[in-house]
Amino acid sequence: MGEAYQSGDGLPVELIGALAERFGDRFQQGDAIRLEHGRSETHFAPMPPDGVVFAETTDEVVAVVNLCREAGVPIIPFGAGTSVEGNTLAVQGGISLDLSRMIRIVAVNTDDFDCVVEAGVRREQLNEYLRDQGLFFPIDPGANATIGGMASTRASGTNAVRYGTMREAVLGLTVVTADGRVIRTSRRARKSSAGYDLTRLFVGSEGTLGIVTEVTLRLHPIPEAISAATCSFATIAGAVDTVVQSIQLGIPLARVEILDDVQIRAVNSWSKLDLPELTTLFFEFHGSERYVAEQVETVKELATANGGGEFRWAHRTEERSALWKARHEAYYAAVNLRPGAIGWATDVCVPISRLAECIAETKRELEASSVPATILGHVGDGNFHVVFSMDPDSEAELEEVKAINARLVRRALDMDGTCTGEHGIGLGKQQWLEEELGDAVDLMRAVKMALDPDNILNPGKVFQL
Amino acid sequence: MGEAYQSGDGLPVELIGALAERFGDRFQQGDAIRLEHGRSETHFAPMPPDGVVFAETTDEVVAVVNLCREAGVPIIPFGAGTSVEGNTLAVQGGISLDLSRMIRIVAVNTDDFDCVVEAGVRREQLNEYLRDQGLFFPIDPGANATIGGMASTRASGTNAVRYGTMREAVLGLTVVTADGRVIRTSRRARKSSAGYDLTRLFVGSEGTLGIVTEVTLRLHPIPEAISAATCSFATIAGAVDTVVQSIQLGIPLARVEILDDVQIRAVNSWSKLDLPELTTLFFEFHGSERYVAEQVETVKELATANGGGEFRWAHRTEERSALWKARHEAYYAAVNLRPGAIGWATDVCVPISRLAECIAETKRELEASSVPATILGHVGDGNFHVVFSMDPDSEAELEEVKAINARLVRRALDMDGTCTGEHGIGLGKQQWLEEELGDAVDLMRAVKMALDPDNILNPGKVFQL
Repeated sequence: MGEAYQSGDGLPVELIGALAERFGDRFQQGDAIRLEHGRSETHFAPMPPDGVVFAETTDEVVAVVNLCREAGVPIIPFGAGTSVEGNTLAVQGGISLDLSRMIRIVAVNTDDFDCVVEAGVRREQLNEYLRDQGLFFPIDPGANATIGGMASTRASGTNAVRYGTMREAVLGLTVVTADGRVIRTSRRARKSSAGYDLTRLFVGSEGTLGIVTEVTLRLHPIPEAISAATCSFATIAGAVDTVVQSIQLGIPLARVEILDDVQIRAVNSWSKLDLPELTTLFFEFHGSERYVAEQVETVKELATANGGGEFRWAHRTEERSALWKARHEAYYAAVNLRPGAIGWATDVCVPISRLAECIAETKRELEASSVPATILGHVGDGNFHVVFSMDPDSEAELEEVKAINARLVRRALDMDGTCTGEHGIGLGKQQWLEEELGDAVDLMRAVKMALDPDNILNPGKVFQL
Repeated sequence: MGEAYQSGDGLPVELIGALAERFGDRFQQGDAIRLEHGRSETHFAPMPPDGVVFAETTDEVVAVVNLCREAGVPIIPFGAGTSVEGNTLAVQGGISLDLSRMIRIVAVNTDDFDCVVEAGVRREQLNEYLRDQGLFFPIDPGANATIGGMASTRASGTNAVRYGTMREAVLGLTVVTADGRVIRTSRRARKSSAGYDLTRLFVGSEGTLGIVTEVTLRLHPIPEAISAATCSFATIAGAVDTVVQSIQLGIPLARVEILDDVQIRAVNSWSKLDLPELTTLFFEFHGSERYVAEQVETVKELATANGGGEFRWAHRTEERSALWKARHEAYYAAVNLRPGAIGWATDVCVPISRLAECIAETKRELEASSVPATILGHVGDGNFHVVFSMDPDSEAELEEVKAINARLVRRALDMDGTCTGEHGIGLGKQQWLEEELGDAVDLMRAVKMALDPDNILNPGKVFQL
């Protein structure tokens, strides 16, 4: 189909014709829609695709893959666009393949605690749908992301300490491969040792190995009792030690989030709360009434021993929703510490024995910086975020944040941690992947070249070939 | 190094010289030791390797890989030899690389609930070592397998319903690749979204993609209270429904095993117990004293409502050990239903909503067969085993068992289940892998060819290239 495609060329006319014929007005090339699919919620400069296709079925995804492959044109799968490491930017142009209209909930198998959904289903839609059936899908990255996107970045979030990440939540995938085949990576059994774990290979591959169109998810029964509370601490170490000791005692914390004093100030202002402006843990406990009471009793004792203040309870559903809504909006709260600012969100994850030290060192550096920044994280996993509130017009601030981020990543790597706990590599973390994993990255390259020999699937992401 | 190696040739003389020089008497070619590394605990005919190397370090594994690759000679990683699908048989000759002397526990990080061990460490050794530190490693396939072998077959077992399988337990691996490089698949953080999930790609790859030499494992705190019990049921459905309903209520069953009446008879005889010869559940509950009591109360109510009898308790550690020892020896108990018999152990896994039906249909078929056979399984996962006690000299019995096994697998696949829940594909399940996963197997082949282009790592296993 015409000459070899080069980024910046615009699309080959044959491809434009074929996509227009097949997709009608679900194939678009207008500036606004291209920009919408080529920008990030964070600091990355926009990199719009040459066109956008809204696919509604797996067969349509196959059609796009086949047309683009023949034309040598890149395909970037797109969901809600809420990723923060530039994961969906069209660095080499091409087609943004928008799956957000694939929102069918294909099946819910209540007795098996699983469901099958299309890639464009968002987590809030799914939980809404499941509520009446006594089940829920626990993975909660904050943003109302699509399930396909969450699978692709191996997302996790606030519930991961108890329920795991997308690594544990995904039981199987329907994937369109680079050569246009539709595969299913697994049957619906809860476990299997039938061959290579293709499910986990695709989870976290950021659309570079295949395009996820359906996801089979593990669900959980809605607990009989749910209780949430906040507790402020005099020191970061006191907060972290409370969590580590709770886990050592086998307390199955359902959620445990740390927010530093600056983040609490931002949350108070953005969400109209009045929390003490100190390092604070947000807890959630799940279980039977009696068991939740027992967990709470133990954790309160530990908190007190570690310099924690009073527990402020959110017993009613609405109070709890308000609390977690505030947590979910923490990113926007942080960015808006300054009017007109843009955000930069980074994350690292370290062994939890090193977490207090890693946060404390980072905190000292943030305090010495001229750019406002907050710390918040999933303390039970050893994972935390720094959100910077940057002047969009200041090159100096961008450079300063870049340097702080680089030192943060190196600090995490020095502690045997990872450069990204849950955001993925995208564009933003590529320079550290090799430092983190060495020659293992060559194996990733070999897998990429084996499964996408023409390099048409989200090229330029995760690593350079 | 000489002519191309052909299976059955014996080893090239240059390779023999080089291995003898490097490994001295840790390289052996005697018949007895080759047979020991070339037979299975089940029905497979022996397929001995041409030689055995006992490696003691990762560097030695690199040396073997480099020498064998240059000679074009297969390498079959070997641990405890307890796999049951012919996973370690030398189908194309070559070197059995025995890692059972790599038994160092490299590090235990108590605050991080993880440890690093060499591949040859056995699970009992590890738990012995951990006991004083208040931690345990939960994955328990019955046999005292090596951790490397368990990673390679994605083993699971009795605790998987609560603690997951080797998929969840392995945090990272040190792997020697086919081209002789040493890679580490992950840092020690509990989660990461840094690139492709190589850890999970190697877990379950049965030594065909690389040789695991060290494993970082997730550990758990030893619960304050542990209680175990057995309960007999009038029907299989009653037992299965008790488990499904318990999970629906959020009871975190630590272990829940089903044994059919024939298996109970075998266990009574082999382990000198006096359990009622009915379908029986073996339970274990973990938690605080109060929480265990609460779990037990709920499960007892459910069991009674589903036709269960009295709970027989094993409160004391010794009683509990005796109970689980009996469960672990169930395979030997089953094979020894007939003196001089050989065993055939198969396993499938189905969505748990289909489990009662799958077991009941299988049971009817076993009752109609002339070969004694038992059913036992990890009912919370939907996974069960059939163990046949076969006359080693009867071709007719072998054919009959083959046919029953084939129908069992097809039954599981028809229920959207898998041909193997935890034993791996090895040789025994290859004919069904393609039926289960279709074109996805081609992706596995592509990955294999990318990571082991000369096909020297456990060739002929999992699938044919």
